[in-house]
Amino acid sequence: MADNFKLVIEYDGSRFHGWQRQPNDPSIQGEIESAIHRMTRQNITLIGSGRTDAGVHALGQVANFTCHTRISPQEFQEGLNSILCDDIVIRSCDLAPPDFHARYDAKGKLYRYTILNSPHPTAMGRQYHWWLRAPLDLPAMQTATRHLMGSHDFKSFEAMGSPRSHTIREITAAAWTTRGQHLCLDIQADGFLRFMVRNIVGTLVEIGRGKMEPEQLKTIMEARDRSLAGATAPAQGLCLVKVLY
Amino acid sequence: MADNFKLVIEYDGSRFHGWQRQPNDPSIQGEIESAIHRMTRQNITLIGSGRTDAGVHALGQVANFTCHTRISPQEFQEGLNSILCDDIVIRSCDLAPPDFHARYDAKGKLYRYTILNSPHPTAMGRQYHWWLRAPLDLPAMQTATRHLMGSHDFKSFEAMGSPRSHTIREITAAAWTTRGQHLCLDIQADGFLRFMVRNIVGTLVEIGRGKMEPEQLKTIMEARDRSLAGATAPAQGLCLVKVLY
Repeated sequence: MADNFKLVIEYDGSRFHGWQRQPNDPSIQGEIESAIHRMTRQNITLIGSGRTDAGVHALGQVANFTCHTRISPQEFQEGLNSILCDDIVIRSCDLAPPDFHARYDAKGKLYRYTILNSPHPTAMGRQYHWWLRAPLDLPAMQTATRHLMGSHDFKSFEAMGSPRSHTIREITAAAWTTRGQHLCLDIQADGFLRFMVRNIVGTLVEIGRGKMEPEQLKTIMEARDRSLAGATAPAQGLCLVKVLY
Repeated sequence: MADNFKLVIEYDGSRFHGWQRQPNDPSIQGEIESAIHRMTRQNITLIGSGRTDAGVHALGQVANFTCHTRISPQEFQEGLNSILCDDIVIRSCDLAPPDFHARYDAKGKLYRYTILNSPHPTAMGRQYHWWLRAPLDLPAMQTATRHLMGSHDFKSFEAMGSPRSHTIREITAAAWTTRGQHLCLDIQADGFLRFMVRNIVGTLVEIGRGKMEPEQLKTIMEARDRSLAGATAPAQGLCLVKVLY
């Protein structure tokens, strides 16, 4: 029987066109599938817990693949890390139960969005945050963030042109922390719609700039209308921290 | 009379061939001189506190240039930051006394060298450290580091082929700190020879790996012989934090 390998993957998404394999552009899935092919000479399909968009990073993306092989999980980890470019790292490789499926079995995800709120940008580490010059009212953003908690219809925060039949998600944790001039939103849910975190952050930033009241977040959610929410925050501030099973 | 402008500059050195202007390759000095030319239509020379090598970063490089202009320091800062690519940021621009010279007046420099000591590399932030897998004996490295303090002849730590008549430097501070799996050496001196920090770090890592005793650092210094010291640590772990005047 084929073995089922579970990977935990870190990547710097800066130069990739997202997770999903593309015919002509570099993708995380494509790079790892090629590396597995180099090790096994087999064309396997890597199943990710979900896509991340172009420029989005991950500390703990999870994926699985099945393969008839004598290569051990540790040999896969070492081998893939030596084949892969520096911006993708296999953090662990383990044998999973035969029916483990990285996407179907995911119970939730934790994302982090990082803002640098300072008068001037930085050069070092600029790949990992959204720089905003104007001072943000963090307490107002925190008040609004509390309205996100629980089960809601997040259609107002879904990317245009990607309608899903089911747009209700449950946010189980959402909190801001500060490290110097960095503001980080950690947000966990049973699942996320496309662009959901970045559209939420874009809206919270409008609130932080005083252009919307914290209470408006509730109105926006209830309206189920993308045009009422703020702009999509840039990809480079977003990181998939963990997938929950 | 021409005004003398003092810049404090942050840069991510990853894609540059060092500070110094090059005929065909990107350099920090070259990029900033071109940007100043775009603002002033004048060919000015930017005087840095010293060169940094290819791939080395800076949080607080200092440079000055003189110019007949009505552009204010604040306008220079804003203008240069909008012209320059994201990996160079002007952190401040001020009028300096007419005789201020970024190189001749520098009284000292503070560098930081960062090592990631962990079983696996990281993808995010890999541009800013040297990844070392084998566990390092930090107490041994700290013992050896103390031998560096004070005035010594650092010829053993100077890059081959760059002989200076005067190789005595005074180290005024040198200490390791840890943040998770990161080890940082902060080292301050009245000046540094070429590759000096990276050659010191390469030697301290040999000590951390148990391949040399901490006491050998003294012997190496006294021998004034580059071949006795460790290999040059890679550029990406090094950052010029501050220039002292």
